[in-house]
Amino acid sequence: MADSTWFYENFEHTGSAIGFRTVRKLDEVQSPFQKIEIFETTDFGNLMVIDGAMMVSTRENFFYHEMMSHAAIFTHAAPKDIVIIGGGDCGTLRECLKHAEVETVVQCDIDEQVTRMAEKYFPELCESNNDPRATVMFDDGIAYMAAAEPESIDIIIVDSTDPVGPAEGLFNRAFYETCFKALRPEGLLVQQSESPLALMNLIQDMIAAMADAGFRGFRTLPFPQPCYPTGWWSCTIAAKNGRDLTTFRNDAAAGKTFRTEYYNAGIHHGALLQPELLKRALKQS
Amino acid sequence: MADSTWFYENFEHTGSAIGFRTVRKLDEVQSPFQKIEIFETTDFGNLMVIDGAMMVSTRENFFYHEMMSHAAIFTHAAPKDIVIIGGGDCGTLRECLKHAEVETVVQCDIDEQVTRMAEKYFPELCESNNDPRATVMFDDGIAYMAAAEPESIDIIIVDSTDPVGPAEGLFNRAFYETCFKALRPEGLLVQQSESPLALMNLIQDMIAAMADAGFRGFRTLPFPQPCYPTGWWSCTIAAKNGRDLTTFRNDAAAGKTFRTEYYNAGIHHGALLQPELLKRALKQS
Repeated sequence: MADSTWFYENFEHTGSAIGFRTVRKLDEVQSPFQKIEIFETTDFGNLMVIDGAMMVSTRENFFYHEMMSHAAIFTHAAPKDIVIIGGGDCGTLRECLKHAEVETVVQCDIDEQVTRMAEKYFPELCESNNDPRATVMFDDGIAYMAAAEPESIDIIIVDSTDPVGPAEGLFNRAFYETCFKALRPEGLLVQQSESPLALMNLIQDMIAAMADAGFRGFRTLPFPQPCYPTGWWSCTIAAKNGRDLTTFRNDAAAGKTFRTEYYNAGIHHGALLQPELLKRALKQS
Repeated sequence: MADSTWFYENFEHTGSAIGFRTVRKLDEVQSPFQKIEIFETTDFGNLMVIDGAMMVSTRENFFYHEMMSHAAIFTHAAPKDIVIIGGGDCGTLRECLKHAEVETVVQCDIDEQVTRMAEKYFPELCESNNDPRATVMFDDGIAYMAAAEPESIDIIIVDSTDPVGPAEGLFNRAFYETCFKALRPEGLLVQQSESPLALMNLIQDMIAAMADAGFRGFRTLPFPQPCYPTGWWSCTIAAKNGRDLTTFRNDAAAGKTFRTEYYNAGIHHGALLQPELLKRALKQS
């Protein structure tokens, strides 16, 4: 294709790469925290890249945003108050607000420029930013959680970049302790947990740190995500009260009245049915 | 990493790419049909590339081989005789022969060089080639199926490259008609059916051609496969007798005595629970 070039993300950690064919770079900004680039691709719509790592594309961000939100929300019996740490592209926020029973969602991303770029190049992800239930703020998520009122949140969604740079402090015991304290007794923490093929050690370490912080039930749900390394990604849900995370509000999920591209009650069940390599590594039957 | 270089497969069709970091090229042969290259990668073992397209890596071929074999085999009530068209790396053959009830497996790949390279660089995939139930032959799969005895086969597995070049004739009505005739009444056809994200049209066309050939029940099962475009792949099972393909020998799958890395009874159930985009595109509920 004339004038097109391939943009690759070389994921040094795991020796694998992902690429999209691009038409041109649409924008670029160096924020106080990171470099944000926007490309127009030939087949996947717009693409946001942060410090060289792909974050979202128009065409296939739905896997991640739907699994990061709906799985935990339908697992919680009565989710009213949600906090998203990170999530600056606003896609997870939009999914959370599809649930009528959700009363407040605070999105706390450290980097306002991510949201400004999303508003411009991914307007569909930002379409619920003005929902009266939404608070979009720009602050340090670690400080936000440390200052949160105890037992005030039903679900905390850690929708961050990889555990290097600004997001590094979102993957350790100290941070998880603030989450544990801020959650109501039935509260759930859900975090993006990288590739179960390439980064199983990271998932194991994350769950160990969550356990050290007091969490007692864990479940890692795999899902496809083409623009992330290996194309096979996961989120991990942790329960404050140690409840079984393999059951959820099935009737509500099966009867959901909003549109999704990937998530449904069957997909949720399927993501709870673990492949052999996860069963062996995580001892989640 | 010193002396390492990135090998990319640019998938022109869909504008996406996959890459692995390689240490060196181990081998290369131009067969009468295609160019076969073998690379040593830093993290994924050896990698076979045919005409620029990644076929298998040591570390992550299990997704594909297990889903192409076990799902159909556990769906069939009494699978005795299996034919694999393509499959020259012998990984699908190995998985089929893990089933004690299987009596014969014929693998018919047009290109002997693929198997010779697999024997050398993926010996673990070839470990069952000398099983007395196995026949490894090198011939045109289209001619083989055209000459097959009617109603002589329980499962036909089309384990081919993309539908261009040597494999093009494996994706049309004429070929499917020979498969339909060669299958016993309870017989199943299973074919690799590319990426449900990027190539849904291909899956729809394939199913339409299978239906034209007489097949009456269809099911597309998605699974991860990092070395294929978008990392999200699928196989499609078709039934000669129109039987329900959403049930399988669950107890046998749950009680399987052989080791797998991905497939198990839960994963099979999960792959039958379709994401929203597949439900809408394929009308498979």
